[in-house]
Amino acid sequence: MKVIKDSVHDHIQIEGVARELIDTPQMQRLRRIRQLGTVSLVYPSANHTRFEHSLGVYHLACQALEQLGVDGPLAKRVQAAALLHDVGHGPFSHNLESVTHRRTGRYHDDVHDLLADGAVGDVLRAHDLDPASVADLVAGDGRFGQLISGELDVDRMDYLVRDAHHTGVPYGTIDHGRLVRELSFVDGELVLAEGNVQTAESLLVARALMNPTVYSHSVARISKAMLRRAGERLIERTETDAATLQRMDDYDLIAALRSSPETAAYARRLDHRDLYKRAVWAEIDDVPGGIIEADHETIREFEREIAAEAGVDADAVILDVPGRPSMTESTSRVMVNGEVRSLGQQSPLVDALRGAQYSQWRLGVYSPADSSVRVGRAALDVLGLDIDGPLVSDVRDGLYTTLDQFGGDSSA
Amino acid sequence: MKVIKDSVHDHIQIEGVARELIDTPQMQRLRRIRQLGTVSLVYPSANHTRFEHSLGVYHLACQALEQLGVDGPLAKRVQAAALLHDVGHGPFSHNLESVTHRRTGRYHDDVHDLLADGAVGDVLRAHDLDPASVADLVAGDGRFGQLISGELDVDRMDYLVRDAHHTGVPYGTIDHGRLVRELSFVDGELVLAEGNVQTAESLLVARALMNPTVYSHSVARISKAMLRRAGERLIERTETDAATLQRMDDYDLIAALRSSPETAAYARRLDHRDLYKRAVWAEIDDVPGGIIEADHETIREFEREIAAEAGVDADAVILDVPGRPSMTESTSRVMVNGEVRSLGQQSPLVDALRGAQYSQWRLGVYSPADSSVRVGRAALDVLGLDIDGPLVSDVRDGLYTTLDQFGGDSSA
Amino acid sequence: MKVIKDSVHDHIQIEGVARELIDTPQMQRLRRIRQLGTVSLVYPSANHTRFEHSLGVYHLACQALEQLGVDGPLAKRVQAAALLHDVGHGPFSHNLESVTHRRTGRYHDDVHDLLADGAVGDVLRAHDLDPASVADLVAGDGRFGQLISGELDVDRMDYLVRDAHHTGVPYGTIDHGRLVRELSFVDGELVLAEGNVQTAESLLVARALMNPTVYSHSVARISKAMLRRAGERLIERTETDAATLQRMDDYDLIAALRSSPETAAYARRLDHRDLYKRAVWAEIDDVPGGIIEADHETIREFEREIAAEAGVDADAVILDVPGRPSMTESTSRVMVNGEVRSLGQQSPLVDALRGAQYSQWRLGVYSPADSSVRVGRAALDVLGLDIDGPLVSDVRDGLYTTLDQFGGDSSA
Amino acid sequence: MKVIKDSVHDHIQIEGVARELIDTPQMQRLRRIRQLGTVSLVYPSANHTRFEHSLGVYHLACQALEQLGVDGPLAKRVQAAALLHDVGHGPFSHNLESVTHRRTGRYHDDVHDLLADGAVGDVLRAHDLDPASVADLVAGDGRFGQLISGELDVDRMDYLVRDAHHTGVPYGTIDHGRLVRELSFVDGELVLAEGNVQTAESLLVARALMNPTVYSHSVARISKAMLRRAGERLIERTETDAATLQRMDDYDLIAALRSSPETAAYARRLDHRDLYKRAVWAEIDDVPGGIIEADHETIREFEREIAAEAGVDADAVILDVPGRPSMTESTSRVMVNGEVRSLGQQSPLVDALRGAQYSQWRLGVYSPADSSVRVGRAALDVLGLDIDGPLVSDVRDGLYTTLDQFGGDSSA
Repeated sequence: MKVIKDSVHDHIQIEGVARELIDTPQMQRLRRIRQLGTVSLVYPSANHTRFEHSLGVYHLACQALEQLGVDGPLAKRVQAAALLHDVGHGPFSHNLESVTHRRTGRYHDDVHDLLADGAVGDVLRAHDLDPASVADLVAGDGRFGQLISGELDVDRMDYLVRDAHHTGVPYGTIDHGRLVRELSFVDGELVLAEGNVQTAESLLVARALMNPTVYSHSVARISKAMLRRAGERLIERTETDAATLQRMDDYDLIAALRSSPETAAYARRLDHRDLYKRAVWAEIDDVPGGIIEADHETIREFEREIAAEAGVDADAVILDVPGRPSMTESTSRVMVNGEVRSLGQQSPLVDALRGAQYSQWRLGVYSPADSSVRVGRAALDVLGLDIDGPLVSDVRDGLYTTLDQFGGDSSA
Repeated sequence: MKVIKDSVHDHIQIEGVARELIDTPQMQRLRRIRQLGTVSLVYPSANHTRFEHSLGVYHLACQALEQLGVDGPLAKRVQAAALLHDVGHGPFSHNLESVTHRRTGRYHDDVHDLLADGAVGDVLRAHDLDPASVADLVAGDGRFGQLISGELDVDRMDYLVRDAHHTGVPYGTIDHGRLVRELSFVDGELVLAEGNVQTAESLLVARALMNPTVYSHSVARISKAMLRRAGERLIERTETDAATLQRMDDYDLIAALRSSPETAAYARRLDHRDLYKRAVWAEIDDVPGGIIEADHETIREFEREIAAEAGVDADAVILDVPGRPSMTESTSRVMVNGEVRSLGQQSPLVDALRGAQYSQWRLGVYSPADSSVRVGRAALDVLGLDIDGPLVSDVRDGLYTTLDQFGGDSSA
Repeated sequence: MKVIKDSVHDHIQIEGVARELIDTPQMQRLRRIRQLGTVSLVYPSANHTRFEHSLGVYHLACQALEQLGVDGPLAKRVQAAALLHDVGHGPFSHNLESVTHRRTGRYHDDVHDLLADGAVGDVLRAHDLDPASVADLVAGDGRFGQLISGELDVDRMDYLVRDAHHTGVPYGTIDHGRLVRELSFVDGELVLAEGNVQTAESLLVARALMNPTVYSHSVARISKAMLRRAGERLIERTETDAATLQRMDDYDLIAALRSSPETAAYARRLDHRDLYKRAVWAEIDDVPGGIIEADHETIREFEREIAAEAGVDADAVILDVPGRPSMTESTSRVMVNGEVRSLGQQSPLVDALRGAQYSQWRLGVYSPADSSVRVGRAALDVLGLDIDGPLVSDVRDGLYTTLDQFGGDSSA
Repeated sequence: MKVIKDSVHDHIQIEGVARELIDTPQMQRLRRIRQLGTVSLVYPSANHTRFEHSLGVYHLACQALEQLGVDGPLAKRVQAAALLHDVGHGPFSHNLESVTHRRTGRYHDDVHDLLADGAVGDVLRAHDLDPASVADLVAGDGRFGQLISGELDVDRMDYLVRDAHHTGVPYGTIDHGRLVRELSFVDGELVLAEGNVQTAESLLVARALMNPTVYSHSVARISKAMLRRAGERLIERTETDAATLQRMDDYDLIAALRSSPETAAYARRLDHRDLYKRAVWAEIDDVPGGIIEADHETIREFEREIAAEAGVDADAVILDVPGRPSMTESTSRVMVNGEVRSLGQQSPLVDALRGAQYSQWRLGVYSPADSSVRVGRAALDVLGLDIDGPLVSDVRDGLYTTLDQFGGDSSA
């Protein structure tokens, strides 16, 4: 048995197959992938990695399995899946996932190949575990897939607490001890036991508060958009293909971006935190139909049009359109008066938080500071946005903290 | 300057008039009044006092005043009010406030007499402070009264964090540093600066989660109801009058309850945590019109009727009817796009949390365990309650923790 | 199973015999006994009780038993002893222990009678546990007695962390998770496994830093001495005898002190924190032979002589002579290179910390502020103290914090 | 004013010259230099950077300056030095400092050139600050240099707390609030005010406990030695010179090590945490005279001899000889009875901790696992070590945690 000291869960015990899995190159690689990507440009303490998060998810999975009374081969399989659930992540975690997915058709939780090959596959088979069945769990399939990737999964319980701990933001402090303890299966579905509507709500609330404060902070979004743009160029204009990029760690990617003339300018800007500014920051109701659903090529075309109209280089415009808000926790299942109900059915908070997500949603147009006014005007015109009042380029920007641009509220 | 070590704010500096005020008997008395009364029967670590809370409120008031650019005599007055804001509390804080208010017409924030008299009055006058004007601030009057007792007051910022810290519950962790830093006055009203809708929401959310978990936990409510009953008897059947009771500390009250034959049985039950159980636990929609608004005498009459019908002693029935839910934070003011708005206007959360409060509201009928089924049946009948399913007396009760009766969800 | 939320260990699970024991009046009484007595007059947040500490000790004992591979009846017995280990404490914990011990011959860990009688005895016997054998463990007897009361006991592991948490002092943060995990038995002796010299040292260091900062802070000592004096009078001049006092809780004692004219003045001073000041504060080398070993009567005689010479009432002088420093941790056993060694043998820190204890030791003479100079002069003379420089009555005193009188260093 | 959220100090306010300095490329580079280098291979959460540490040092310096009553140009100069004090660090902080120092003659605190050039020089001059005088402070020169780099500097106060927070180890929790508050100047020397012997001791104790647990953990030392070896080869066998290496960030270095065939094998081992094992782990008394003082060339010669005798490749042997233990805190100055004393004069702990350092000191010989027994035997012979008992290669190694090799105690 190994014991690893963790800044969130204190001591984590690693046993059996997990003990060998952590020594594989695939797991060790996660030490070099930041959990929150460019969020560290907003919160300087947020340098934690997918490795420590994976240990935490494994730890909570072990507790949940004990609570559910599961041991033997099934428990071993779930533990392996918990530990391995993030090995499919590319550099900077989710930041470049859309770029690689467009070309490989793969998200980070599609790990059948990764688990079958190399050291991981060897370890799994040596412990009589079928890599494919572990990969199924990672993808959320099957009864116990719900525990790894579902509305009540241990992934979320770890990351909310861990991201709050490392950013210093006080909003992610759910009671994971209680959440894990109250899990049970009813008719094959993972549910929270009677008396836990509020425990389920607290998970929802934590994510609703962490989202604008951390995950979708405007500076994190701008730097992520710049990184994504650089990643696109790396694939389009150099020998690096999407599958290769996906298997890099943060060090590989930064080195590649710095060394190619096609991407060096982006790398330098990210290194110096010399970021684009917001030229437009628009609420969902001000965005004409069709734009939110536009595909990648259409977005690129908009960018080129905006640049042309503003008289700037095409590189000087980034259009950042998030998808429509979703709220998967709303289907969390809780026991109420002896019957299983979905949280959305039971809790008035679910609709309210969905409403809050809509009000926090923002379309962003970013550009270098010296052209943001011109780009902003052109973007309003090209996109047909209907915004009253001053352009957001007037708003101070680029702070390291949320203190004056907490969520979407800082738009003018 | 004194420096006091606090488990929440670390070092608290005490200067000027505050330094002398803390040495008065009135302030020292607060060391012997528990902040959360009978909540310590649910959360054994919740033994913190009004004294440390008062220091914390003073500390946050000093920070807020610095942020607002206020110093001189006005700052001194506000600091005195912050430190003294709870000297009017009776034993067990809010637990007996309704009992004494019914007889004295006074709530704990009505402190004009207390501040004018004795050592506190002497200290205030020696520092050229008018006791009446300090008492006005405590009552929430005037521009700076909002900072002491209002929707955005430092009282709430301290108690949410402190109560969470001492109970061990993870839900009260607001960002008080940010809240204090973002305060400003606009047209005489205290508002949160631009970009703080979510900061304001987090205050609301914290209270919404702390409420059922801590403040209105069913065991806390049962023990509070028993204490209140004992307090009533002390006033009605012994020489102790309401004004005297109100000036006691926790030690005086417990000693008085133990020593009088009229109240000793209640004291023994509270000491041994041998509490009444829930005979009925009814949602707001099941309670017939008029009962929520019933006055004290009507409630007592209901209790007697229920006891008669159940064939038990009148002491064996307690009817506990909370007031209608309120949500004062909904009128918090925040700057949005350059104008002052109330939070309720701006945030969809406000309505949702109000809805949640309604769904958590419960009428309780309590009685000794051995008569709870009979009392429950009689209460349904006498009160005309319309409850399907089993009586809540079937539900396990009396645990120390929320873990199986979190909020109102544990009713059957 | 019950789960109790604790501010130190988060969730504590209570099962089996422990679940019934916590509901006994003897255990519930511990809710009303402050862990650190008058230390709350120095650190206002230090209001934690013997009850929560007992739960914590039980929690760590369960972890240690699991680590040691112990279950069945033996584990049940040790768990019961862990939970019950402090039921023998009188009001204000250790503060009055010398007073009652002098008359009853009993310390708080002599609990054979207490465990055999009443509800506790009934519960133990109902679970096939012999109360006497549980009491033996509480007294530290036998192999597993070491775990409850020995150099490496779980009692100390809980209180160092808990007292640090509640005072806010950063020095008690030992790694109890590691300590418990590294315990084993070698030849019937409890030892820390190989590689833990430093783990053992950290326990020693934590106590060495907590001692002057918290446990022996001068203001805590002064108020404790005043409480002890009041307790003496209560026994000597009223109908309360030592055995009765020993069974009181904090509420009983405060009520008794307030209501008797013999002790009311002390009660009022403690309530108002209107404490005696240091008239003398002398290092160990300045104290003539014999005084440290003097018995109670001799001390009282010294006090009378000092009062006579100073021309003050005998009540106005308290002579406070601590015992010689001891350091029980020095005999903690650790494995080093395959053999069991005592920590004192292995670690140069042990001698150094013993030296530090000597340099921190202080004899105190306390009196009301207005007579402290006279009392100080008289005490120097009567006790034959050899102190250069000004009397300590010149030194500012009575602060709530250690910030200017940290340990013994504040003497002039 | 900017406000940055920090996981240790919560909110850090950045004003004036500091606000512009943090935006320079030199400061932004510190985001990409891990504070503890290879320690993250032992404690996976220890990914914090020199950037956040620099903000913390700036924050404490501002508090200390306020306490010392310093403002105006002098304060600005000290604040700039605090923020910039680590810009001279190379990749992986101290890990490669000996390698570059041997060739450039420079340690990380020699920053006269760095502060005079580029954006930093421009900002300093624009704020009327002389870069040379700021660099003097960084080097510890002058009265206020003591605050930046001295026995009582704010650097240490930040890193002890921060490193403890991020590793999860409970030993670094000094009371920095109190330390900063108690600083004053006496005759031009920085001292802690009366009553702070123990505050000073706690700083010493924290470092003494952190040292073997974190900074000199055997796995951290092994991986650091491997990185150092790789760095040597990079300079010796590729076009990278020492000055260039010194200006790299962690990303540059890892990329360089991976891409050169001379160093790729080391990079792969570090990436996969496939580390050398201890072949010898010897106490200071077992090491013959002269070896500790041996220069770099002699050490290399020893390595070649050991490899030859063991019949392995020269790369397969690393000899790691730490310098003699030092304890700079022993000259910290504290006021005692009105005079300035050095801590070593006053506190028996200083000698004891010096003794502990000697007992924890270890010479290490490392090699790949499959040759460690042969290398161990050869090393004993070549170095003339006098060790009884089994070679340490028998001891389990390579754990992520200290839990079984805490400090030097795990040697056989």
